[in-house]
Amino acid sequence: MTVRVGVIGVGMIGEDHIRRLSRVVAGAQVTAVTDVNAERAGKVAAQFGGPDVHATGQQVINAANVDAVVVTSWGPTHEEYVLASIEAGKPVFCEKPLATTAEACWRIVQAEIACGRRLVQVGFMRRYDAGYRALKQTILDGTIGAPLIVHCAHRNPAVPDSVTSEGVLIDSAVHEIDVVRWLLGEEIVATTVLKPKRSKNAVGDLQDPMIVVFQTESGVLVDDELHVNIRYGYDIRGEVVGEYGVARLADGNSIEVTTAAGRGGKVPADWRERFVAAYDVEFQEWIDGIAAGQEASGPSAWDGYAATVVTDSCVAAYHKDGWAEVSLFDRPDFYGKQATVTA
Amino acid sequence: MTVRVGVIGVGMIGEDHIRRLSRVVAGAQVTAVTDVNAERAGKVAAQFGGPDVHATGQQVINAANVDAVVVTSWGPTHEEYVLASIEAGKPVFCEKPLATTAEACWRIVQAEIACGRRLVQVGFMRRYDAGYRALKQTILDGTIGAPLIVHCAHRNPAVPDSVTSEGVLIDSAVHEIDVVRWLLGEEIVATTVLKPKRSKNAVGDLQDPMIVVFQTESGVLVDDELHVNIRYGYDIRGEVVGEYGVARLADGNSIEVTTAAGRGGKVPADWRERFVAAYDVEFQEWIDGIAAGQEASGPSAWDGYAATVVTDSCVAAYHKDGWAEVSLFDRPDFYGKQATVTA
Amino acid sequence: MTVRVGVIGVGMIGEDHIRRLSRVVAGAQVTAVTDVNAERAGKVAAQFGGPDVHATGQQVINAANVDAVVVTSWGPTHEEYVLASIEAGKPVFCEKPLATTAEACWRIVQAEIACGRRLVQVGFMRRYDAGYRALKQTILDGTIGAPLIVHCAHRNPAVPDSVTSEGVLIDSAVHEIDVVRWLLGEEIVATTVLKPKRSKNAVGDLQDPMIVVFQTESGVLVDDELHVNIRYGYDIRGEVVGEYGVARLADGNSIEVTTAAGRGGKVPADWRERFVAAYDVEFQEWIDGIAAGQEASGPSAWDGYAATVVTDSCVAAYHKDGWAEVSLFDRPDFYGKQATVTA
Amino acid sequence: MTVRVGVIGVGMIGEDHIRRLSRVVAGAQVTAVTDVNAERAGKVAAQFGGPDVHATGQQVINAANVDAVVVTSWGPTHEEYVLASIEAGKPVFCEKPLATTAEACWRIVQAEIACGRRLVQVGFMRRYDAGYRALKQTILDGTIGAPLIVHCAHRNPAVPDSVTSEGVLIDSAVHEIDVVRWLLGEEIVATTVLKPKRSKNAVGDLQDPMIVVFQTESGVLVDDELHVNIRYGYDIRGEVVGEYGVARLADGNSIEVTTAAGRGGKVPADWRERFVAAYDVEFQEWIDGIAAGQEASGPSAWDGYAATVVTDSCVAAYHKDGWAEVSLFDRPDFYGKQATVTA
Repeated sequence: MTVRVGVIGVGMIGEDHIRRLSRVVAGAQVTAVTDVNAERAGKVAAQFGGPDVHATGQQVINAANVDAVVVTSWGPTHEEYVLASIEAGKPVFCEKPLATTAEACWRIVQAEIACGRRLVQVGFMRRYDAGYRALKQTILDGTIGAPLIVHCAHRNPAVPDSVTSEGVLIDSAVHEIDVVRWLLGEEIVATTVLKPKRSKNAVGDLQDPMIVVFQTESGVLVDDELHVNIRYGYDIRGEVVGEYGVARLADGNSIEVTTAAGRGGKVPADWRERFVAAYDVEFQEWIDGIAAGQEASGPSAWDGYAATVVTDSCVAAYHKDGWAEVSLFDRPDFYGKQATVTA
Repeated sequence: MTVRVGVIGVGMIGEDHIRRLSRVVAGAQVTAVTDVNAERAGKVAAQFGGPDVHATGQQVINAANVDAVVVTSWGPTHEEYVLASIEAGKPVFCEKPLATTAEACWRIVQAEIACGRRLVQVGFMRRYDAGYRALKQTILDGTIGAPLIVHCAHRNPAVPDSVTSEGVLIDSAVHEIDVVRWLLGEEIVATTVLKPKRSKNAVGDLQDPMIVVFQTESGVLVDDELHVNIRYGYDIRGEVVGEYGVARLADGNSIEVTTAAGRGGKVPADWRERFVAAYDVEFQEWIDGIAAGQEASGPSAWDGYAATVVTDSCVAAYHKDGWAEVSLFDRPDFYGKQATVTA
Repeated sequence: MTVRVGVIGVGMIGEDHIRRLSRVVAGAQVTAVTDVNAERAGKVAAQFGGPDVHATGQQVINAANVDAVVVTSWGPTHEEYVLASIEAGKPVFCEKPLATTAEACWRIVQAEIACGRRLVQVGFMRRYDAGYRALKQTILDGTIGAPLIVHCAHRNPAVPDSVTSEGVLIDSAVHEIDVVRWLLGEEIVATTVLKPKRSKNAVGDLQDPMIVVFQTESGVLVDDELHVNIRYGYDIRGEVVGEYGVARLADGNSIEVTTAAGRGGKVPADWRERFVAAYDVEFQEWIDGIAAGQEASGPSAWDGYAATVVTDSCVAAYHKDGWAEVSLFDRPDFYGKQATVTA
Repeated sequence: MTVRVGVIGVGMIGEDHIRRLSRVVAGAQVTAVTDVNAERAGKVAAQFGGPDVHATGQQVINAANVDAVVVTSWGPTHEEYVLASIEAGKPVFCEKPLATTAEACWRIVQAEIACGRRLVQVGFMRRYDAGYRALKQTILDGTIGAPLIVHCAHRNPAVPDSVTSEGVLIDSAVHEIDVVRWLLGEEIVATTVLKPKRSKNAVGDLQDPMIVVFQTESGVLVDDELHVNIRYGYDIRGEVVGEYGVARLADGNSIEVTTAAGRGGKVPADWRERFVAAYDVEFQEWIDGIAAGQEASGPSAWDGYAATVVTDSCVAAYHKDGWAEVSLFDRPDFYGKQATVTA
């Protein structure tokens, strides 16, 4: 069975996912697209086998030849399209953020629970990265004992001048927020933001770098270096420190070159190079699940809600001294238990 | 457009490729299968969406719903099925060896030239491995200057007791033979086999390890450690030594773990773990090319022929002192020039 | 010229330094020793060429055949012996801490200034480690731009049950305190202590691990994971994050081993294995300077004073929320400027 | 007790050893020097504490204030000075080669046996390198099982135009010859030279690179890439392949740097940088042994003889096809058994 997918929003990421669903993932076909820029929608459609071009996202969702929906439109529109997909009873993959406010995320959670079936998946692709998966397996195996600390770094060569410190927390830190919740199988309960000496590469008021610290339910501390103008490349580091050992993401080079310049490897240029394989796996597993008639098993509406609440906490922490709390509603039974680290 | 594939031979590798074409590769569908073991063919078919089960390979090749053929049957049958596919004018992917004798390979080359269109691709998957591709790019970029030496190792945890030294040359060394021809863009002209102290893990008369040395047209020397009972894992090493630098395959671990046992990574357990991504890329590119109406661009019938002739040379060298020549026919213009290293 | 050294305190470290001065360092001779345990002093003396055994540290300092003094006695006695050495006009190497209180350290600083000659060196051996020296050189070269963040980890397999959280700050964190001041060429002005989930390996009230954060004059933030019961080995990590790059301590293995257990290296068992070469260099340079008639150029009395004040700040921070200030007197001109990072 | 050393030959290496004995090694003093260039001898003496400057090597050897002799003069003079040192009953450290012909080496062996005491040590410093020592320990521990193959590379940035292929075998390959004999605890019995495509960096008739293959008594094969114009740095690689695992020299960087140029480390610029620590250990152990009244335990006259015979075999192999034999006299009982690998 081929899963017929409708895509709402064909900007850079939307187009890339259309390419992925058309040419990389097995068992999928993009049958409908739309975009606020109709001309662009038409061009992209022409490039990828001519899916129907609709005037609105609502039409895409309701189209008879659409089995599942991908939402890659502007963030403020996510809530509407995800709710409409739930209403239509169709699986929906929504790029992060699930919605731009915690309240909107919570409305989605409520709607999904009301519908009684897990239809929503949020685009936290790191959970599909070979390195993060190996870290999680190592934790679950008990190889390093119970995790106590996680050290992270999120380094980016450059960001546009328009990017603010809050924007970095919302758009970049959110990835560590999700992946750390998933690695540890528990919620973040408080955050604080430390402000190192500013880089001369930082424009305007941007606090770059930052160190965000997360505290989880059981007390694990996570320090996350957010550094978005480091120039040298896109460098994602992660190290889990346990009671008996540590595990960290490797450098991921496929070759090592030695010349007069030294011996070593390259750093990825950007997030696409770094996470291309993770995106591919993410979509293959999503399509496979739908084809098999299973409920969504990836990052859930709850995860999207929790990530947004923690991000809000980070923004609050940015504007005060000390810790900001994270106030989550109780996790609904509907979402089951998170994986528990048994070590 | 979905490419409809017929698969001849559903042993372990055949079944794995059916899985790959059905569930991993975009744009392909397995529509016909056959096997000498009809029951097995039926079982595998049932597992993967129910393609037609045919009594013979010839029927698969001729089936109206088959656009392209995959040959993964017993080696001695390859020639027949590849020739029949050419006869039928259908693209054919043949697992190595292309055929079991140089003469048979040459008949395939002749048939393909007569047909006037590149239809044949041989399953040398290493050309699709990220590491080997990065090595080739590094050579082409001129980063390390002209290649002068290549150091290889092909280490396997264990082989069945029935495996002979000739078998290791035919089945294992052939991979380095192909990938080195491709990396360097030139032919191997002579081979010699050095015989180190035998491993106590080697059974019967098996010479394990061996060091095979290849000499190319321009004089590059390639030493290849073949070591098929090293127990610790499946470990493929490759290092190209140039005039100004060296480039080598990295270890490929996604994480590094530190415990009381030390700091480091794992070695792949077997060839499937090591080259799974290469196989996926190999088939995706093959399918994409067919869907786009292009001639085959992967390892060609010529490459299959050359690999077999070089393997024959290695077997001859195994039974004598010194060097054995490699006597290839002239490369037909039909196959174009190999990539030339310009550094 | 051979430098004749008197050693006060022949416990484990004192004996090791006597061995080093006798058998590793060129141009030195241990001519006098003492210890509160006279019997032990006699035994050690007999083992290393029979230096004079004195009843008191004061006698060692005043001995005519002693050109320079090493103080490796119990911490509370350091002040007395260092002051006496200054009084005697003899170069003195004092293991950390310089003295157990900031006031005592300051008295030593004052005495040294009054004497008008740099005679005091404190045993912060990390400044002599090849890795830290390469980090400093990389900073000075401007390779990574101005440092903004330093990530450190100080991991120890186990500590005695008697060790307290304050003890870890005083005995372990002090090494990062000194080496970071030296790497960055500036003072630490505030500290805070974060308390992760406790390891089950931690005994009693010990907070293990801790994350101490230091802030320097220019705003650089340093996070230091102190983790003294991690079992797997003695593992010192350090990474300097600059505006344009990062530099970190390598693993330092001399070989890589691949077996069924994986591929990788070993972690040092303890501080002696990790820093043996640094100790050797530290003493060779100290002796060379004395032989050349130069003033002490290693970690100074000021550095010993600053380290103690910062350590006091950490202990204060441990018992409160948020940051604790570091209140240093002004750096006397006598000690010159620290190396300034010019990038 | 201070060992008083006389040094014959104060060229670059001689001067460096004088510096080492004067300023790095504990327990040694250079008391006498000589050189064919008397002016140079005087200058170096003035720089290092003013040892006596003698007119001849014989005078140095016979000087009453000389306990031990270092021979770092021109190769053709080695035999004379080593024999004279034996005659004088004084320990003698001779830089490689022990002598320039096998016959001369054998005369030294005979003289030493006649004298009844091991006085001669040859300067094969790799045995003192931390990496090679760890390789040997790994072999002895049985971690990788019995060694079957050793892969080596000896890469040098450049050599003077005057260097010949024979010169590379005599001066460079000799290091792998010695260290492999020592690692494996057995003799080399045959050699062959393979000639890859020549580097454009090779001047005149120089065959660069070469691959020399050694066969040992038990059948272990050693391939050694000799590559003396690779420009990028001085890079010594060594990998021992055993029945159950492999062990190889690590890169030895003390830090890892990441910038826009990539992530990695540096390659040593030359042999001095690479082996400085090995030289220091070599001389410290030599001096310690003499001070303790022990016979020489480092590379022996026998090792110097064997290295020369194997080198001769390589030169013969260079001028013929196939293998050249190594014809050693029987190992005299005087030199004991080599370490035997028990795995």
